[in-house]
Amino acid sequence: MSRFGDAIAIRRVAEGRYEADLDGGFAIGGALNGGYLMALLARAAVDVSPHAHPVSTAAAFLRVAKAGPAEIHVDTRKTGRTAATSRATLVRDDKPLVEALITTGTLEPGTEPSWAGEPPAPALPPYDQCPDFRSGDERDRGFADQVDMRYDPATMGWLDGQPLGRPEVRAWFEFADPYEPDAYALALAVDALPPVAFNLGFRGWAPTVELTWHMRAVPAPGPLQLHGGGRLLAGGWFDEEVEVWDSAGRMVAQSRQLARVGRPGS
Amino acid sequence: MSRFGDAIAIRRVAEGRYEADLDGGFAIGGALNGGYLMALLARAAVDVSPHAHPVSTAAAFLRVAKAGPAEIHVDTRKTGRTAATSRATLVRDDKPLVEALITTGTLEPGTEPSWAGEPPAPALPPYDQCPDFRSGDERDRGFADQVDMRYDPATMGWLDGQPLGRPEVRAWFEFADPYEPDAYALALAVDALPPVAFNLGFRGWAPTVELTWHMRAVPAPGPLQLHGGGRLLAGGWFDEEVEVWDSAGRMVAQSRQLARVGRPGS
Repeated sequence: MSRFGDAIAIRRVAEGRYEADLDGGFAIGGALNGGYLMALLARAAVDVSPHAHPVSTAAAFLRVAKAGPAEIHVDTRKTGRTAATSRATLVRDDKPLVEALITTGTLEPGTEPSWAGEPPAPALPPYDQCPDFRSGDERDRGFADQVDMRYDPATMGWLDGQPLGRPEVRAWFEFADPYEPDAYALALAVDALPPVAFNLGFRGWAPTVELTWHMRAVPAPGPLQLHGGGRLLAGGWFDEEVEVWDSAGRMVAQSRQLARVGRPGS
Repeated sequence: MSRFGDAIAIRRVAEGRYEADLDGGFAIGGALNGGYLMALLARAAVDVSPHAHPVSTAAAFLRVAKAGPAEIHVDTRKTGRTAATSRATLVRDDKPLVEALITTGTLEPGTEPSWAGEPPAPALPPYDQCPDFRSGDERDRGFADQVDMRYDPATMGWLDGQPLGRPEVRAWFEFADPYEPDAYALALAVDALPPVAFNLGFRGWAPTVELTWHMRAVPAPGPLQLHGGGRLLAGGWFDEEVEVWDSAGRMVAQSRQLARVGRPGS
């Protein structure tokens, strides 16, 4: 198993009840990454379903989740031939940390689309032209140590106080400890980019309020491309959309989150 | 009260329990419109919240809802200063018809965006250049009688067996029986267009599996513009995104749904 494979392990303890050990390696500043938490909830939803894939996950992030033991409660609300839907809750100390609605279905690998839109523009530059933007600081950086992300330099000016002026971030995505793309990797990938609001001049923690993502195809092996964008930042609320494309040139996941901005400037 | 105002009335019968009379006027082919059901659930979520607006609604559509009495169960999962989140369920005969996760917040009217993206392209033609595409048949048509929608003719060729070849539909939206835009009108508006898959040559019922929408601003009075698009149709699943813009030129709501296609051709 890889680090991520171990981190998303769940243990069934009763019907609709699971235990998990939340891995602090997937924390950013002490708070566990929302994509990691969605991956855990999806594991449980798939476990109770006759279907293989979490085709739709809507998650509301209620409280900060930190490393340590947690429970997952899954309540199946409908099981159908094409899809099944459950409520899934990540719980600690009897308090819900994340509430999700997860619909499972089965996607056949290699399905030819009936219709597919153009890849997002602008394109992500080739992998070897995208730096990792790691500093020389080698102490444990949590989430950033678990992934191997290479960023489009055009979308990283905010690091030097020169935000792009548009809510865009693009990057290549792989795990540092190899783990080939699957449904759970996609759950992580849709919440792996720095907040697009950083390129509008905001900094600091940008808590996700709600994130819905859809798995659209079984991803091919190899690095994923993440294309993050957004449409509006108003009253402290912003939306962030991420499309995930695989090495075979297919859109394999799409997400939108509604989040709050941190402090302007810095 | 208008027909829509009456149709979304709810009666509180206990803590977190409401009764509603589902109005068959909002049915399409016997099945009640999902946007109408989301509006009812949002009414209940706002009623239990200290906040004024349903800023984020994620809904899974489990069973067809028909006209008649129903219950709404609301379970608050967190109440915070900026946002509160509830699970809301539309129930009939002890079975969930729609499961939703609703986060409420308060949006100030007239908030100037910190950043706003360009209006969608292509633009919707002026109102008087958009026909209503009503046939001469004046019998009760349900949903289509409750709204006054004027469609971009470029996106209506599917009616004559000439689909556009791209998943796009655009229209002006008002209620037939006047009701000024508010949060609940927006819930209806994001699910009011014909399925974008009709412009890819599919016809028939296209059931929504999951729809998430965000209210982004308090809408100005006057007609709304609906811009529907999509990114992928594969294995019978398609996504449909709708942006709702108000008469003041602001994006007031954005949605994405995952749905299933009906029969190809016909």
